[in-house]
Amino acid sequence: MPDILHKVGIKSSSLNDVYKALTTREGLSRWWTTNTQGGSGVGDVLQFRFDAGGMDMKVLELDPARRVLWQVVDGPEEWIGTKVSWELRQDGDWTIVLFKHQGWKEPVEFMHHCSTKWAVFLISLKSLLETGKGAPHPNDIKLDSWE
Amino acid sequence: MPDILHKVGIKSSSLNDVYKALTTREGLSRWWTTNTQGGSGVGDVLQFRFDAGGMDMKVLELDPARRVLWQVVDGPEEWIGTKVSWELRQDGDWTIVLFKHQGWKEPVEFMHHCSTKWAVFLISLKSLLETGKGAPHPNDIKLDSWE
Repeated sequence: MPDILHKVGIKSSSLNDVYKALTTREGLSRWWTTNTQGGSGVGDVLQFRFDAGGMDMKVLELDPARRVLWQVVDGPEEWIGTKVSWELRQDGDWTIVLFKHQGWKEPVEFMHHCSTKWAVFLISLKSLLETGKGAPHPNDIKLDSWE
Repeated sequence: MPDILHKVGIKSSSLNDVYKALTTREGLSRWWTTNTQGGSGVGDVLQFRFDAGGMDMKVLELDPARRVLWQVVDGPEEWIGTKVSWELRQDGDWTIVLFKHQGWKEPVEFMHHCSTKWAVFLISLKSLLETGKGAPHPNDIKLDSWE
């Protein structure tokens, strides 16, 4: 099965700060979408909303400053059941984020779109932590007419 | 085998302009790397150079304003033999670019890096065509200590 894989390094940031940006509603709303709702503990469901819809993610694992795992429980049909994982580690002056969105059934055109769009938001996350300012939806880079 | 897949839409640009940015040395040097050398016809080898090395791409197919196919003939070990394809089409006001980098043997960490980095350069391509200004190397977003 095809996966979306990314890696981004965040300079002069702590593992804890990156982890907080991935595991609190306030953190998530500052780089992904300003309209982030729901709970952020294990077993809770986070709700991310965009102009063109949204998705609900169940938090499956939280390993502080190391790993986060979500499963999509509602949203675009192709996303339902897929898993999104985040692995963090320190590498000298960089905090490294390894990202995987796994469980896609087919490499459809929508998957190409989502791959690029995840990169857009990972760069927003990097920018938030490096400069204090992310570019969450609705201020994100629009990639095509689907948005 | 895992693939890197991306999609980017470029607003109010023509298919021909996008095609030129992918198939001329001058075009490529304005969004990917300022140090682009070699020939750009079918059978020629384009040489892309960065601070941390570079890669040579043989041009396998050129279908004007529709499709471009390269094969990596020199560069990082994981890249050699892989293929990079670009498919273009018009969708209303957008020129859509479907991008694939196929033939990776394993989903190694370097592949995660390259996936995000291709998105960085696709956004540079989009920016070049939409605003007249890309962000080719050495002015690209640096993702980690590998660069």
